[in-house]
Amino acid sequence: MKKVITFGEIMLRLAPQGYYRFSQADVLEATYGGGEANVAVSLANFGMDASFVTKLPAHAMGQNAVNSLRYFGVDTSSIVRGGDRIGIYYLEKGASQRPSQVIYDRAHSAIAEAQPEDFNWPEILKGHDWFHFTGITPALNPEVAAITLEALKAAKALGITVSCDLNYRKKLWTQQEANDTMSTLMEYVDVLIANEEDAEKVFGIHADATNVDQGEIDHENYISVAKQLTERFNFKKVAITLRESITANDNIWSTMLYADGTAYFTPRYNMHIVDRVGGGDSFGAGLIYALTHDMSNQDAINFATAASCLKHSIEGDFNRVTVEEVMTLVQGDGSGRVQR
Amino acid sequence: MKKVITFGEIMLRLAPQGYYRFSQADVLEATYGGGEANVAVSLANFGMDASFVTKLPAHAMGQNAVNSLRYFGVDTSSIVRGGDRIGIYYLEKGASQRPSQVIYDRAHSAIAEAQPEDFNWPEILKGHDWFHFTGITPALNPEVAAITLEALKAAKALGITVSCDLNYRKKLWTQQEANDTMSTLMEYVDVLIANEEDAEKVFGIHADATNVDQGEIDHENYISVAKQLTERFNFKKVAITLRESITANDNIWSTMLYADGTAYFTPRYNMHIVDRVGGGDSFGAGLIYALTHDMSNQDAINFATAASCLKHSIEGDFNRVTVEEVMTLVQGDGSGRVQR
Amino acid sequence: MKKVITFGEIMLRLAPQGYYRFSQADVLEATYGGGEANVAVSLANFGMDASFVTKLPAHAMGQNAVNSLRYFGVDTSSIVRGGDRIGIYYLEKGASQRPSQVIYDRAHSAIAEAQPEDFNWPEILKGHDWFHFTGITPALNPEVAAITLEALKAAKALGITVSCDLNYRKKLWTQQEANDTMSTLMEYVDVLIANEEDAEKVFGIHADATNVDQGEIDHENYISVAKQLTERFNFKKVAITLRESITANDNIWSTMLYADGTAYFTPRYNMHIVDRVGGGDSFGAGLIYALTHDMSNQDAINFATAASCLKHSIEGDFNRVTVEEVMTLVQGDGSGRVQR
Amino acid sequence: MKKVITFGEIMLRLAPQGYYRFSQADVLEATYGGGEANVAVSLANFGMDASFVTKLPAHAMGQNAVNSLRYFGVDTSSIVRGGDRIGIYYLEKGASQRPSQVIYDRAHSAIAEAQPEDFNWPEILKGHDWFHFTGITPALNPEVAAITLEALKAAKALGITVSCDLNYRKKLWTQQEANDTMSTLMEYVDVLIANEEDAEKVFGIHADATNVDQGEIDHENYISVAKQLTERFNFKKVAITLRESITANDNIWSTMLYADGTAYFTPRYNMHIVDRVGGGDSFGAGLIYALTHDMSNQDAINFATAASCLKHSIEGDFNRVTVEEVMTLVQGDGSGRVQR
Amino acid sequence: MKKVITFGEIMLRLAPQGYYRFSQADVLEATYGGGEANVAVSLANFGMDASFVTKLPAHAMGQNAVNSLRYFGVDTSSIVRGGDRIGIYYLEKGASQRPSQVIYDRAHSAIAEAQPEDFNWPEILKGHDWFHFTGITPALNPEVAAITLEALKAAKALGITVSCDLNYRKKLWTQQEANDTMSTLMEYVDVLIANEEDAEKVFGIHADATNVDQGEIDHENYISVAKQLTERFNFKKVAITLRESITANDNIWSTMLYADGTAYFTPRYNMHIVDRVGGGDSFGAGLIYALTHDMSNQDAINFATAASCLKHSIEGDFNRVTVEEVMTLVQGDGSGRVQR
Amino acid sequence: MKKVITFGEIMLRLAPQGYYRFSQADVLEATYGGGEANVAVSLANFGMDASFVTKLPAHAMGQNAVNSLRYFGVDTSSIVRGGDRIGIYYLEKGASQRPSQVIYDRAHSAIAEAQPEDFNWPEILKGHDWFHFTGITPALNPEVAAITLEALKAAKALGITVSCDLNYRKKLWTQQEANDTMSTLMEYVDVLIANEEDAEKVFGIHADATNVDQGEIDHENYISVAKQLTERFNFKKVAITLRESITANDNIWSTMLYADGTAYFTPRYNMHIVDRVGGGDSFGAGLIYALTHDMSNQDAINFATAASCLKHSIEGDFNRVTVEEVMTLVQGDGSGRVQR
Repeated sequence: MKKVITFGEIMLRLAPQGYYRFSQADVLEATYGGGEANVAVSLANFGMDASFVTKLPAHAMGQNAVNSLRYFGVDTSSIVRGGDRIGIYYLEKGASQRPSQVIYDRAHSAIAEAQPEDFNWPEILKGHDWFHFTGITPALNPEVAAITLEALKAAKALGITVSCDLNYRKKLWTQQEANDTMSTLMEYVDVLIANEEDAEKVFGIHADATNVDQGEIDHENYISVAKQLTERFNFKKVAITLRESITANDNIWSTMLYADGTAYFTPRYNMHIVDRVGGGDSFGAGLIYALTHDMSNQDAINFATAASCLKHSIEGDFNRVTVEEVMTLVQGDGSGRVQR
Repeated sequence: MKKVITFGEIMLRLAPQGYYRFSQADVLEATYGGGEANVAVSLANFGMDASFVTKLPAHAMGQNAVNSLRYFGVDTSSIVRGGDRIGIYYLEKGASQRPSQVIYDRAHSAIAEAQPEDFNWPEILKGHDWFHFTGITPALNPEVAAITLEALKAAKALGITVSCDLNYRKKLWTQQEANDTMSTLMEYVDVLIANEEDAEKVFGIHADATNVDQGEIDHENYISVAKQLTERFNFKKVAITLRESITANDNIWSTMLYADGTAYFTPRYNMHIVDRVGGGDSFGAGLIYALTHDMSNQDAINFATAASCLKHSIEGDFNRVTVEEVMTLVQGDGSGRVQR
Repeated sequence: MKKVITFGEIMLRLAPQGYYRFSQADVLEATYGGGEANVAVSLANFGMDASFVTKLPAHAMGQNAVNSLRYFGVDTSSIVRGGDRIGIYYLEKGASQRPSQVIYDRAHSAIAEAQPEDFNWPEILKGHDWFHFTGITPALNPEVAAITLEALKAAKALGITVSCDLNYRKKLWTQQEANDTMSTLMEYVDVLIANEEDAEKVFGIHADATNVDQGEIDHENYISVAKQLTERFNFKKVAITLRESITANDNIWSTMLYADGTAYFTPRYNMHIVDRVGGGDSFGAGLIYALTHDMSNQDAINFATAASCLKHSIEGDFNRVTVEEVMTLVQGDGSGRVQR
Repeated sequence: MKKVITFGEIMLRLAPQGYYRFSQADVLEATYGGGEANVAVSLANFGMDASFVTKLPAHAMGQNAVNSLRYFGVDTSSIVRGGDRIGIYYLEKGASQRPSQVIYDRAHSAIAEAQPEDFNWPEILKGHDWFHFTGITPALNPEVAAITLEALKAAKALGITVSCDLNYRKKLWTQQEANDTMSTLMEYVDVLIANEEDAEKVFGIHADATNVDQGEIDHENYISVAKQLTERFNFKKVAITLRESITANDNIWSTMLYADGTAYFTPRYNMHIVDRVGGGDSFGAGLIYALTHDMSNQDAINFATAASCLKHSIEGDFNRVTVEEVMTLVQGDGSGRVQR
Repeated sequence: MKKVITFGEIMLRLAPQGYYRFSQADVLEATYGGGEANVAVSLANFGMDASFVTKLPAHAMGQNAVNSLRYFGVDTSSIVRGGDRIGIYYLEKGASQRPSQVIYDRAHSAIAEAQPEDFNWPEILKGHDWFHFTGITPALNPEVAAITLEALKAAKALGITVSCDLNYRKKLWTQQEANDTMSTLMEYVDVLIANEEDAEKVFGIHADATNVDQGEIDHENYISVAKQLTERFNFKKVAITLRESITANDNIWSTMLYADGTAYFTPRYNMHIVDRVGGGDSFGAGLIYALTHDMSNQDAINFATAASCLKHSIEGDFNRVTVEEVMTLVQGDGSGRVQR
Repeated sequence: MKKVITFGEIMLRLAPQGYYRFSQADVLEATYGGGEANVAVSLANFGMDASFVTKLPAHAMGQNAVNSLRYFGVDTSSIVRGGDRIGIYYLEKGASQRPSQVIYDRAHSAIAEAQPEDFNWPEILKGHDWFHFTGITPALNPEVAAITLEALKAAKALGITVSCDLNYRKKLWTQQEANDTMSTLMEYVDVLIANEEDAEKVFGIHADATNVDQGEIDHENYISVAKQLTERFNFKKVAITLRESITANDNIWSTMLYADGTAYFTPRYNMHIVDRVGGGDSFGAGLIYALTHDMSNQDAINFATAASCLKHSIEGDFNRVTVEEVMTLVQGDGSGRVQR
């Protein structure tokens, strides 16, 4: 079986229960998540060997984050312990016309203050077949970007496939900074995941006529974006996720995979949202699973899309679904009939 | 007032809160339910005298099940105490494209290991006018099927009307076993409740063109099924429930009553699901209430359908609605306006 | 900045959690709310100076109500302490075809048994620019109606603008009583808020063709109602809210402002309801904010409508939104995209 | 088996969770209880036939109170439905040096506004062997005192044994009022339950040297009180409970039974308090059980004391213990070893 | 580092929250635990490599049990998946004079119905240094006793040290059955853990004068028991735990280690009990840790006793403490001062 | 009435519920607290005008902290908004021999990164009579120490009384740093609060024979410490708190006031701990209340001690008690009898 390793930040997620606003929260649900950690957990739930690398403080709250990964069988043996704090994000779930709110409190976290010598990449990566990261990790600060670059170089040297989810976060860096750093890192990436906004904001690649907020999706535009990305960075595959937000409760979800000059589109899922955080990460995990299991391009993108569709029905960052559950949806049963 | 008695299993229902998956559940909601118990509770909520018969262990968890019925005024005086365990079902509520999951842990329960001598049916049934059971009860095992047959014989001898909800459960028996046993029991049944799937799986009765998963309902097909059932078993009335599952959150609900060669259809309710377990049972209870209160066939099926529509908006197995609430919906107000 | 003061009852609101029915509630969510208090809180959340006047018992549960207002910065210094009890309302949230239920237990509350000498209105109102009340307050009983009249006289003497939300409650008084009392009070009112039902029930003003339950809205009819109200009572502005109830979960919300002979309509919001109690109050607060901040009539009604649309996505009576959040929706983004 | 019937008020009890103060309570635990209802529930838990009589509003919160009694098998068929409200008491649990706080909101409850014609006592009491009430019931107001007197007369006429728990509540009436009313009622009472304070406050009977707050118990004084009570009212038996409060968490509990000129004392239980409300009622129930089951005076007082000791370890008003559990403690095992 | 492996049953533990009785539990806390699993978790928390072997059903509730162990880093790779159900125990926490209650529902669990061929012991045990089991495992039924015997033989063949906690459970087998089976197994045991009751009930070894219920501990008696055990079965070390139950809330805890003819006693800890289930298991884990880390006999028994003392302050079966925390208590600081 | 103002940090306090360890916490109780904020809240609960000054981020979590103070009526108008984060402390409540654990995550908080120009002290302090701070505030970093010094100078210039609670936190600074900074600030302090450990660690003042862990209190030693402090810094009054920790659940609490050469001691309270965080702060508030209300030295120290004794029975940092409740305890009733 192929082994996957991901690198990034795992944060403490603090969220009021249900649809409570921050000002109503006497208790906060305390879970853990972060782009690359979410991918590792989802892959472990698919039965794969998945490792996650980060740095976490040695105290009990850091240990909780480690435990939350071990719970799913994620290999945490390369997590470095040290530093002062675990990053936090506060999440308030939106409803109807009221959007979800995220407040980040991640500066000065252990991973944000990690040093290159914390990670011996050739040692860490040994025995793995696939390395995954997102644009959030290098955005933490230039030191972490440098660590990421070292990881990518080591991965290439070991012949490891590399995937990246662009994931532009405007609170972490400017578009110019993102462009500079990510352009350098793209050289090592085989499979790119993005949404149209990401491509535009990070690389200035446009798909003119599309208005994401109104949910009008233009296939041609997305193909154009994928083609431009492929041409500029020589990716093997580019996957683009297309979210149409009707309200905070209702989204339509579909994706496209562009590979070898061909675009593969998927069904559009009308989703009632339980929790949309981690939706993109679950797509990445689905795609990695599919591509390490010899699925055709169309099957792969269908699998990844169904996996991420299901994530939207699950509380927390992590996608708690099995391959069998994804396949049931892929094969067309989204009716939600009781499985007795 | 007519008195109704039902016989079957009541289980401990253990469910994660809200939309949590099993793997997220640090606490489980502990309620009680089961097909025939649900009918008894609903009838008690309609103001009727309702009794429930089963066997439950003498320990505190068995007592809880008894208490959960007494709470609504159900007569529990014929419940036999003994045996080792109360059956359990674990329920994970689905959302959007993710279906609900049920894990049964009901083998070796007190009722499943009950013996014929536990129940003195002529004594138990005395003073009642209506006996109700579902296909789940004889499916528990041949001994319980034999007990059920004894009950039916005693009921007939006392001139008690008998209703049965087919409720095929593939985890409890094969279609062949179901056919053999249920065919024998049908001789004693006056009113049959089923969904199209049940009729096909238990008795091999087909309604060709209908695709339940896609929610296309063909009136003619349902009439054909009811007619075949009536002809084969000589039922006085056959009621068929028609569930169209859009997603785990959205179902369309309608039903049909076939009596004296005529089919009576109802409005189709677009339901936001709070909890669909017990939806069929609440229909059965509504039908029994209506048929014991001199409603016309059309009024009866409308009442039963509205009652079960409301059930889908209520947490737990039990239908906690009054006759007045059902009548409000029957009379056309499904707008959900606040009752101040 | 303009200062607003409101007068009325604040109650303890006891509600089962989630969609539980009263019979399932082992714990009740205990919050506080009431028409005029809700308006004051919403205005404080908009950054305005807002005061609330009432009478509350001196015990801890009365103090909780005071604290719940101070939490938002509402000025509670004119609240009179005394009397025996705080009014209560029990709220059961509806779902799908099942309506919400309200049980009032507000008789004999401190404010319902208040005496005119409890309130020195010229003193209390000094320094304020706007006085708001609803039809619920004078409906409590004739003494409170008399106190309200004193407040209105004092307000007029001080040149304070007065707004009133008709809010007819059939459990508190008859239509005839409401007509008699409210007609007298209308003399002092500058801005009236109502829904079509209120106008008909309190003042017998009809808008023939409209069928509220079916959600068909006839613009002409609403204009006719507003015009009749304006002519009869000489209001400066009349705002009418138009709620179309599809189910307990889905409402469409729009409103109209009639001023200087012109009617201003708003977009219609398709809302998934989290909690609709206080929806009308949040509209009133939005309108007061807009009219004290020099918005045009169209901008004002748009602001008030967006504010109240957002309220429906928030648990509890209080509208916990900022001006910025309302403006985001006014400007057209109701897509519920995550605000990172 | 002997049948017991009790008469009084059952209230909604609203309590912050754990040791939260009222000002910290976003949710309130909603249970039901009241002196005489508590006795009926405890007797039902001992396996006796127990009925409870009161008046409750017809709405859902009144029904909840009925259901809370049916849950235990209490016969609620004589409960009258009508009136406006169910009485409420707010309870904040004390800890260490901080005492528990009770806020009553019971005025104008259905039972407080009941009329003599609501209760046909000869009909209600028929078939019962024992009637129990507390001093709280006649204290509600003179009308309820008159209803109580009617009940007592009917009970005497039917040869029913009558017990009364004095239970003086200073917020309901003055000592003079209590003396006047209770002196009249005592004529019908066979078994009196009191604490020393009650006897002094209601009947002015003193036991000089005892300082209850310091927990010094003087056997002679209690005998003297019992003797005086017996002489004045001709009771068959007088039971006195002796609570020594160390802190809100730690009480010492013992009691005395005075019968036929002899005083029977019990062990003193050092209790860690979980919930002391209903402690006295559970004693009353234990005594009634014992006296209707032919226990000796010493056995009876021991049983009642052990029963009430256990109540202090149980949340809520109701004593949820079986006869077997009480007997285990009577026989000396208070070690709390796990029962596997 | 030494590697430890344990074998037995892990159950779903369902417990009402706080001090609620079973009849008050609308939600049940769902955790996992069992004698040998508890030992493995505690050792993992001490930083050791610990494996746990059992059989669990393949469904989600079985997976939860696996995950609950992985959370702490326990190696679960030898857990066999299959069978129908996970064993359950219902736990009601006692308070004051009211004892905790346990209801077992563990018959027919996957491990109870396991077959010898499910476990390839030489393969499973390879690389481990210590094997631990309790008397509960062979008590499940003769098949599991046979499996245990196979494990012991394989362990001996591999030179693995074996420890056993007698843990007599009267609901699982008779004293005679226990004696027969355990006597055979003792041949393979190096380190025995017991309480005085166990030794008497399983092996008929008496320590005359001790009255456990009254908490009178007689050192001489315990030495005598240990000496008899050692002589009969040739143990290397015998550890005896001495629990003095004052109430369900207050226990005194001490232990004795008997090795090489010498008895080592520990301090007596006055404990406020948070949760005493797993107290004995945490002692076993502490002892294994100490004996695999070259502690002296006195240090070892002190460490194990402090570890298990701390367990009593922790909710759930698992002992969530680190070596550092145990050492702090060993070194005498049981004052509970805040660690800032 | 005297007006009090306090200055320091208010943090988000995240605590597992009940006695759960960090590793068991799926939800964290989210409250707010900090030394000086706690004092302000307690004073507001005593009915005083109390202001709190700090810097908090402009986002929703910062607003929550403001609201948590306004809830009690604390004047928050001088709180500066800005900066990136609100400080956090994670609290795990200890039990029995297991100590409470605190993990601080307060670096880089808005107040820790505040600049002198954020606070216009002469403006802020105007109209106040008393200024209070603790040793935690200058310990945050030298900039905040400088801001504190500015505040003290401004206070002196305005003739405001100054109190300080030494509160040494070894995680924030070394003893040398504390000595240097605090010695400078002491010049402005009129009333000092400390425990013996603080005095020794910050100022090197010893009270030889006392062993705090064993709870042996030596009056003479405390007098000696107070005398030395007074002589060195010329304080008007010195108060010393004496905590004897038996276990995490049981503490004995007493204090001493040294004024004008005389030492005033208080009763020793045997406390069952609900939450001991904020215990010292509640003492400070009690002392300030007493000293601004003309109590004698003995009455003042008794009041402060009773107030802080009660705090230990209350969840959260804040002391939610009234003057009346404190006086009840001062007057000797610590029996915890129910207040009906």
